[in-house]
Amino acid sequence: MNTYKVHFLPDDVTIEVEEGTNLLQAAMQAGVHINASCGGSGVCGKCRVILEGGELESARTDLISPKDYEEGYRQACKAWVRGDLHIRIPIESQLDARALTRARPSPSAHRMAEEIGVERLISEEKFDPPYVKLLVKMAPPAPGDNISDLTRLVNALRSQHDVHNLEIDFKVIKILPQVFREGHFEVTVTLAYRPSHLNGTNPSDIDLTDIQAGDHTKANYGVAVDVGTTSVYVQLLDLNTGEILDTAGDLNRQLSYGEDVISRIIFGGKEGGLQKMQDLITGTINNLLEKICRRKKIDPDDITMMTAAGNTTMTQLLLGIDPKYIRLAPYVPTANYYPPIRARNLGLAVGEHVRINVFPAVSSYVGGDIVAGILASRVYQEPELTLYIDLGTNGEIVVGNQDWMACAACSAGPAFEGGGVKFGMRATDGAIEDFAINPQTLEPMILTVGMKKPKGICGSGLINTVAGLFEMGVLDERGRFEQGLDTPRVREGEDGWEYVLSWADETQIGRDIVLTEVDIDNLIRAKAAMYAGYQTLLENVGLSMHNLDRVIIAGGFGRYINLEKAILIGLLPELDLDKCTFIGNGSLQGARLACLSNTLRLEVMDILSKMTSFELSEVPNYMEYYVSCQFLPHTTREFFPGVLERIQQTRSLVRK
Amino acid sequence: MNTYKVHFLPDDVTIEVEEGTNLLQAAMQAGVHINASCGGSGVCGKCRVILEGGELESARTDLISPKDYEEGYRQACKAWVRGDLHIRIPIESQLDARALTRARPSPSAHRMAEEIGVERLISEEKFDPPYVKLLVKMAPPAPGDNISDLTRLVNALRSQHDVHNLEIDFKVIKILPQVFREGHFEVTVTLAYRPSHLNGTNPSDIDLTDIQAGDHTKANYGVAVDVGTTSVYVQLLDLNTGEILDTAGDLNRQLSYGEDVISRIIFGGKEGGLQKMQDLITGTINNLLEKICRRKKIDPDDITMMTAAGNTTMTQLLLGIDPKYIRLAPYVPTANYYPPIRARNLGLAVGEHVRINVFPAVSSYVGGDIVAGILASRVYQEPELTLYIDLGTNGEIVVGNQDWMACAACSAGPAFEGGGVKFGMRATDGAIEDFAINPQTLEPMILTVGMKKPKGICGSGLINTVAGLFEMGVLDERGRFEQGLDTPRVREGEDGWEYVLSWADETQIGRDIVLTEVDIDNLIRAKAAMYAGYQTLLENVGLSMHNLDRVIIAGGFGRYINLEKAILIGLLPELDLDKCTFIGNGSLQGARLACLSNTLRLEVMDILSKMTSFELSEVPNYMEYYVSCQFLPHTTREFFPGVLERIQQTRSLVRK
Repeated sequence: MNTYKVHFLPDDVTIEVEEGTNLLQAAMQAGVHINASCGGSGVCGKCRVILEGGELESARTDLISPKDYEEGYRQACKAWVRGDLHIRIPIESQLDARALTRARPSPSAHRMAEEIGVERLISEEKFDPPYVKLLVKMAPPAPGDNISDLTRLVNALRSQHDVHNLEIDFKVIKILPQVFREGHFEVTVTLAYRPSHLNGTNPSDIDLTDIQAGDHTKANYGVAVDVGTTSVYVQLLDLNTGEILDTAGDLNRQLSYGEDVISRIIFGGKEGGLQKMQDLITGTINNLLEKICRRKKIDPDDITMMTAAGNTTMTQLLLGIDPKYIRLAPYVPTANYYPPIRARNLGLAVGEHVRINVFPAVSSYVGGDIVAGILASRVYQEPELTLYIDLGTNGEIVVGNQDWMACAACSAGPAFEGGGVKFGMRATDGAIEDFAINPQTLEPMILTVGMKKPKGICGSGLINTVAGLFEMGVLDERGRFEQGLDTPRVREGEDGWEYVLSWADETQIGRDIVLTEVDIDNLIRAKAAMYAGYQTLLENVGLSMHNLDRVIIAGGFGRYINLEKAILIGLLPELDLDKCTFIGNGSLQGARLACLSNTLRLEVMDILSKMTSFELSEVPNYMEYYVSCQFLPHTTREFFPGVLERIQQTRSLVRK
Repeated sequence: MNTYKVHFLPDDVTIEVEEGTNLLQAAMQAGVHINASCGGSGVCGKCRVILEGGELESARTDLISPKDYEEGYRQACKAWVRGDLHIRIPIESQLDARALTRARPSPSAHRMAEEIGVERLISEEKFDPPYVKLLVKMAPPAPGDNISDLTRLVNALRSQHDVHNLEIDFKVIKILPQVFREGHFEVTVTLAYRPSHLNGTNPSDIDLTDIQAGDHTKANYGVAVDVGTTSVYVQLLDLNTGEILDTAGDLNRQLSYGEDVISRIIFGGKEGGLQKMQDLITGTINNLLEKICRRKKIDPDDITMMTAAGNTTMTQLLLGIDPKYIRLAPYVPTANYYPPIRARNLGLAVGEHVRINVFPAVSSYVGGDIVAGILASRVYQEPELTLYIDLGTNGEIVVGNQDWMACAACSAGPAFEGGGVKFGMRATDGAIEDFAINPQTLEPMILTVGMKKPKGICGSGLINTVAGLFEMGVLDERGRFEQGLDTPRVREGEDGWEYVLSWADETQIGRDIVLTEVDIDNLIRAKAAMYAGYQTLLENVGLSMHNLDRVIIAGGFGRYINLEKAILIGLLPELDLDKCTFIGNGSLQGARLACLSNTLRLEVMDILSKMTSFELSEVPNYMEYYVSCQFLPHTTREFFPGVLERIQQTRSLVRK
């Protein structure tokens, strides 16, 4: 794809972007402020810029007069880069000149979630989906050739596809006679390569799990599921090509019974509670699955297999296994291995033949979602010392490499997923996901997912907003608002002091979308839990932040993370940005890879054997560290020298 | 066990019997006639004998006066051998002296069904039940030892029992937490050694199928089932010792929908018919199982596994697989392999963990019952050319040895199982199972199963009665009664001419128990179908009766067979008696052995690979042979020279 240079004036900042990039997004990425409070949806009309030269695809909107359009005015959120450009930010939305010299964000601070594509699997010779479909054509029985239907099939598989050592599912045997005749002895069989056994023996055996009349080989779909405490994601995969066909997410319906795993465990212990919890999660998944199949016009019978990853409690609730002992000392999960399970027996609305492979847990608080993320990020196969963190309701931390891994969990709360936040929401259309602030006017520049009118704020939006407000001095290091500022956006609301991100008439919800001090407290507690976790775990294995070769961030809080801002609030340690990778939803990625690669699926047991779990709550330092982290960025100023220098510089410039 | 000599006078016949043998049975076996028409139940009082010396356990009965008792009179059916004996048959129940010299039956003609005992399995090193129970004692979780329950179990199995490569059933994982705590971390696990796969790979893997709190290792039970078209037998086995704990049989409840497999197939094809057929057969099995468990005071949860053998149609109906194509040319069964199936899914009332191993079929009309019989009789492992026959509603024939086996089926009708016979019944208490006739008075000597008052006649009783009547000339070679005989027992009844086996007041049913010409016709047709079958099959592989090294007879018609009588009516070819073995219910025996021996279970695929099925109906000679067989013993007199000589001799002696 072509890339072009966009030169912003009067800032005199140039950024290289891909063809078709939205101009407002390009400005955000370049650290060039353009007022924009409708999230990029085109309704506020504040993001007017002047095209001084080059190719920009941008029709005139109702908010720009024909005369202004002729003079070069464009709405940045309705403009897309088609060539090298010179763009001027007009005076009414331009930064005070003093601010232009402040520290620019690093272009590499913005990290889109990296998908490990099927190309990489192919190049590694690991694209070997565990479920394949084969077409088998047989001669019909005749006198002198009246072997059993099953023998006919087994013989044909051997001669036509060189398949041996089959185990046949009884439910397949039951339907053989009808399917054979319906398909005129032309049938599609689904073969499953067995996953490794508990102790890791070789996967030499094959199960015949389904048979369909006629040729269905083109329609071989897998479903990957991330079962989060707050959010659930379902992804439809084409197992023939490895392509992601669709992804859908929704809140976990169990949320009505409590936001954290503890409340779910308690509810699960009540009369009928376990069944109820299982019904709610399978209901959430079924709903998403139905939606995806409808959207993609896929026959659900062509779904061949599923994989699911979730934390230990979510996994046990999905499987209908009482998670009681996860909560009681000494915190024992039921299993760290699950055989393939007939999905329908769990209540999942798929064909009878579909098995679900569920990622096993390391411990009660380091679950299959982390194992899946480690699988996706390959920590267990590389020599670099890696810190893997998953920012969810429960924050999980893994440190290690190809030789060993230490892991722990900490209770971060739901802030990273938009929970416990007044206008918090998942990273779906209309969620404020990025934020910048005009240092002079304190007016925001916000971008929403899908550039739709704002509906709320997601995890990444929360991090970026708090970081932006803190950098400009709108928030102090305790997360409290400066109260003497000359802006209507900082005000005392019903929940205390707050910042108005969008005015009611610019939103989808018809109410002012605000960020409150309570919201900020939640974020600070969440990031504190995480940071204290890294610190404790590293110390426990005799290492410190300096030893890290790289950091991998996973989490369902948005499509991307701004690493500088995450460091700015003290969520990430102060590291070189190029040591950091953001993989987005690691759990879903791992679940997807296990659908596409039998080789990777078998490596799960390898991961488990290398991982050692630590209980942070049993390390006395942890609580002490946690308390120290309840500041922006941290009480121990030496941990964040760069951040402090930058804040000082920025504030000094804008407050002159 | 001690054996003793019983010397009968005035016949001057001596027989050696085991200690405790019933005296009436000893006489029957010796060919010494004692009138007895109540089956040995003690009510008719006709079997008075005089003890002339030796030890006989026999209390005085109401039918013997104290004076007579003092003089040595005893009731033979209420007397048991305790030492060498001299017994005189008093004049009122003694044979005419002329008859005493008639050909004696060979002592080896009487063949009790041979059970292949666990001792033989042990000596062959084949006593290796596929399901074992192990006690596992674990330390409870503690801080620093909070591995998952499953890991704890797997580790303990490895260290305490050297068990590796486990696959764990998901339903076991689900109940781990409760069972562990209920048993205070002392649990009993059931391990299943996996049967060979379809293509016969090695059975190296182990499934953990059940877990129980506390020590249940002593209670490890298997259930073998013979699913016959007419009768169903269920046998309870102690898998620790190999012992048969109990056996129970009943009519197949499907009988109300037709006596033969064809009518069952037709009914199965109707709306809801397949489910109905499955429910009826599982209902039959469940009822027997419940009865046995109650009788033996066994907790059904301690049943670990089941095996079942039946003909192809019965097997498919048990499994709920439409047997439609078994009946339609070219007669295709659905499968000749079945994986272990969760028994409860079929409707069997056992624990959720119980799998049923079902014997596979060779073809549509040579089913798993025959495979089981071949397994039990070891035809497939020995060099002798063997004719294996199963006398059931469908008669099956196998010829072969360790190198090859040819098999075929013929429709014998239900006569061998007591079906289609006016007073026919299964070989249970009160069934007339043996018969002899006083050549002079034509009075019968009958023995019933359990020596209870007669209720009806079973397969072996039918063969022995027809043979006895034919030998004495009461029946002619077409199976018609001589009508001018001086006995009230041969008379014209409502169904034509008949012989009265028991008068109403000697029976349990309060009606005369008779054998009619219609009954005899059914038996003749049944034996004709069988004999024509052997003839055709042997000819097809270029052999004849002379080439046979041995004959193995299986069938559910009674505890034993009288081989001489079976030859006499032309059911068996005229062979040396010592070439013949009777194994009783071969299907049940095979099912039992598969419960006790994983090695034997794995040999099933070996049997299948050696067997070739022939369709008798496609061989033109078969019908011709069948017609020739519809005489006693056979139209072709050269086939039975010995029988004809014996009949001539007997008749000439008794009719002087």
